[in-house]
Formats: sequence, structure tokens, C-alpha cells
Amino acid sequence: SGLVLVKNPHLDLMEEDVLYHLDLGTKTHDLPAMFGDIKFVCVGGSPNRMRAFAQLMQRQLGLAAAGEDVADMCAGSDRYAMYRAGPVLSISHGMGIPSISIMLHELIKLLHHAKCRDVTIIRIGTSGGLGIEAGSVVITDTAVDSSFQPRFEQVVLDDVVVRSTELDKDLAEELLACSRDISDFPTLIGHTMCTYDFYEGQGRLDGALCSFSSEKKLEYLRRAYDAGVRNIEMESTAFAALCGLCGLKGKSYCFHLL
Amino acid sequence: SGLVLVKNPHLDLMEEDVLYHLDLGTKTHDLPAMFGDIKFVCVGGSPNRMRAFAQLMQRQLGLAAAGEDVADMCAGSDRYAMYRAGPVLSISHGMGIPSISIMLHELIKLLHHAKCRDVTIIRIGTSGGLGIEAGSVVITDTAVDSSFQPRFEQVVLDDVVVRSTELDKDLAEELLACSRDISDFPTLIGHTMCTYDFYEGQGRLDGALCSFSSEKKLEYLRRAYDAGVRNIEMESTAFAALCGLCGLKGKSYCFHLL
Repeated sequence: SGLVLVKNPHLDLMEEDVLYHLDLGTKTHDLPAMFGDIKFVCVGGSPNRMRAFAQLMQRQLGLAAAGEDVADMCAGSDRYAMYRAGPVLSISHGMGIPSISIMLHELIKLLHHAKCRDVTIIRIGTSGGLGIEAGSVVITDTAVDSSFQPRFEQVVLDDVVVRSTELDKDLAEELLACSRDISDFPTLIGHTMCTYDFYEGQGRLDGALCSFSSEKKLEYLRRAYDAGVRNIEMESTAFAALCGLCGLKGKSYCFHLL
Repeated sequence: SGLVLVKNPHLDLMEEDVLYHLDLGTKTHDLPAMFGDIKFVCVGGSPNRMRAFAQLMQRQLGLAAAGEDVADMCAGSDRYAMYRAGPVLSISHGMGIPSISIMLHELIKLLHHAKCRDVTIIRIGTSGGLGIEAGSVVITDTAVDSSFQPRFEQVVLDDVVVRSTELDKDLAEELLACSRDISDFPTLIGHTMCTYDFYEGQGRLDGALCSFSSEKKLEYLRRAYDAGVRNIEMESTAFAALCGLCGLKGKSYCFHLL
């Protein structure tokens, strides 16, 4: 049916669902009226960047006079920022798996309550590139963990549940085809490695702690490259796992490289 | 000597250290002049709340006329917000271990470059309480993971390194003694459990996904209580491990309970 799925039998029994970190709720807001026609959700770490993206979408879709501003739909919360431009929703998710995971739980329930259909979700973020030209865009086919495995380990109470992190291959190809019309930057499809840490986890030599040599770092990054990894960031495995389980169509992924 | 330690031999070889997510650096800013006299660092998730805390400190320390504002010292970045009031620095860290960990790496280097001495760092955050009165403040003695163990597993390249999460017992007692002068809310010392997830990891029944029963949730939370856990949040193990390794004095911790 194209609807966004929630997999939680308890939700039907609740009189009200408060999407706490988004400052929205089923009793305080008419979610179908506010969001029912959303078809694309774009997510990224920085609130300023997601605001700029919504403004760009507004201009591209011919929806607003020059200089007209977009309003933060989560203005009562400083955890995330959310803007819309026609059928496109643009939301920030902060940095790291726990932060994006809170946002996605509440976003998925929002799209479910609003009865949205056939929603495509795309993460647009910065990442570190691996053996590719600076300025490249990597479209992720599979998100992998720090051992290069396509899995996300979710702790549920004190059990560890392993979830798949495959992304929609058709959407990846479609995005790559779009990129052929834009000659400004190289675009490629590859694996994206997701880490829990920016410094020690990604082989950086400039954190407050660093116990490895430059050689050890390069050896690790070479192994990652050989496993098909083309960029590294901090949210992709959780994004792929959660969107996949909740039937978000075209759950693909793309990055600008710093 | 009371100095803040960095444990990274590569830092001495670097001509410049850019604290990227704080929008500060050793060449662009005179860090000893800006931060050398800092004695207390208070960290918390929300930027608005850390701004309000700096304003409160300013009033309490008699440093500013009523209504005078504090300026964001990381204004060029929307990742974190930082304010100072006399010897007190107030910084936001976002939500979850990866987000606080990026901030702490850069904060520790900042305090090191600024040659700060005898710095006490305290996290002031919201958390879910376990078997305690609503509105209580929990002062953490030990941060534990979802198996109630006092450890933080840090992935370094693809190795897992286990770090201690003990906090300063003297500071915990000192904070508890301070609380005796304030009768507005109950205060206690206990273990704090740190999870990677707000919904499935903390036994919430209202996420987009939930595969456990209310009974299973209560059984887990009862086991946590029996292990000494009095509240649950999402940053304490990384906070305790990183501050401990870098010699941040009085690395204690306290929470307001939602």
C-alpha cells in the first residue's frame, strides 16, 4: 500500500503519541493535514544546512518568492530542526547513531500517523572519502560497520539484535543516472562505513587520544577500501536498518565528500 | 600538575590544531587568553539549556547586569554551543555517545592548549529515573553499560578497547553535601546506565519498533535497579572514560530527572 510501517503493537493502545524530541504530537497537531502529502524526506546532521536545503528546494520547485523564509516545524525543541518545501521535508539529525535513531523513531511514527504514502528518504551528509577524488559524491549501496560487515547491532533491553543494512539498489542507480546531467562533481556508487566515533574509530591522528601509528591507520583504511568502502561517516547503518524495517521506499543514501 | 592531559604523541608534531566542530583553533584563536582561567566545565545535551545555565551562573556569580546576554563562543558552528560565565564554561554536546565524544575530544584539546589547571567537569542532563521520586537529582558514582558493567567499549580502528567508567567518589560526596542546603528536590548517589538508544535500548514501549512486552521491560528495569542503577541516559560511559583518561579532576556527574 506504500504506507510507512510501524512495528510496535503497543502504539494502537495509546490514546496520544507525543513525538517528544520533535515537539509534535497526535493530539496537539493535525499530522495528516500538516504532513500527509510529503513524498520525500531529506535528512542531514546540521540544522543550518537542512534549512539551506529546504530554501534551495523551495527555489527549485518555484514555490516561494526570492528571500521568503522557511519556518522550523520543530521550533519548540532545540534537538532537531525541520522544514518543508512542497512535498519535501528537510530534517536535521545531529551527529552519530543514537542521535539519528531518536529522530528516525519519531519521524517514522510521524509519517505513519500522517498516513503518508510512497515516501523516499535520502540522507545528504558530509563524510570522509577513501581513495576517491575530493569533492566526490558517494551514493551508498550498502552501509557497513567498522569490520566492513553489512549489519547493525541494535541493543534491545540487554539483547543484541543484528539487522540488515542493505539499501535500495534501484534508487542508487536512479540517483547515479541523475548525476550524469551534472558535471560539477564526480559521483560513484560504493559501500559506506559507519563508526561510533570520529577520532579513534576513523583512524584520525589528531584526537585527544590516539594509540596507533600512521602506518596502522593506513593499513586499516586500505583494508576498508579493499572491502569496497568509499567513504566513512557516523549514521548510515542505523539509518539503513531502521528505514528498511519500516518500509520506507527507496531507502537510499548519498553524501557530499568534504 | 593539575594540567589536562592529551594522550596522543602526534599532536606535538602538528603545526596547527583545528578544533573543527567547535570552530576554534590554535592559529586562529589565542586559546590561553580566552580559556586559561577556566576552572569548571559544565556540559549538557541541549544548546538552549546550556545557554540558560551560563546566564544563571553569570547572575549567581554577580558578573553581569540583569538582562545582559552571553555570547556563543562556537558561533561559527551549529554542531555545539559554548558560553562562559567567569571561570565556568557551559557547553552543549547533543545526544548520544558519538556526539558527546566528538565534543570531548575537542574540549580536552582546548583545555590542554589553553594550559588550564585543576579543571572540574560536570555533566548536567536529563535522564529517566529508576525507582526514585520524580524530580530527584542523581549524582553518578559509576557509569554502567546496558549489561550493568562499569565499562565503555571503544572501537579503535577495528579493535575493541575496554575502558573504565569509574567517577570521582570525593566529588560525588561533595556534590551531595552541597545538595543538603537545597531542600527543593531529593538528591542521591547511584549508578547511571548509559544506552546507545532511547527507545528499544531503554525499554520504551512507544518507539516505531518495539518487540518486547511490558512484562519483559519491567523485568529488565528491575534487574537494573537491583544492580544499583538509579537513572538511565545516553552519554555517561563515554564521558567517564574520556575524562578519566585525560586527567580531568573531579570527573563527576549529575542529573536532573525528568
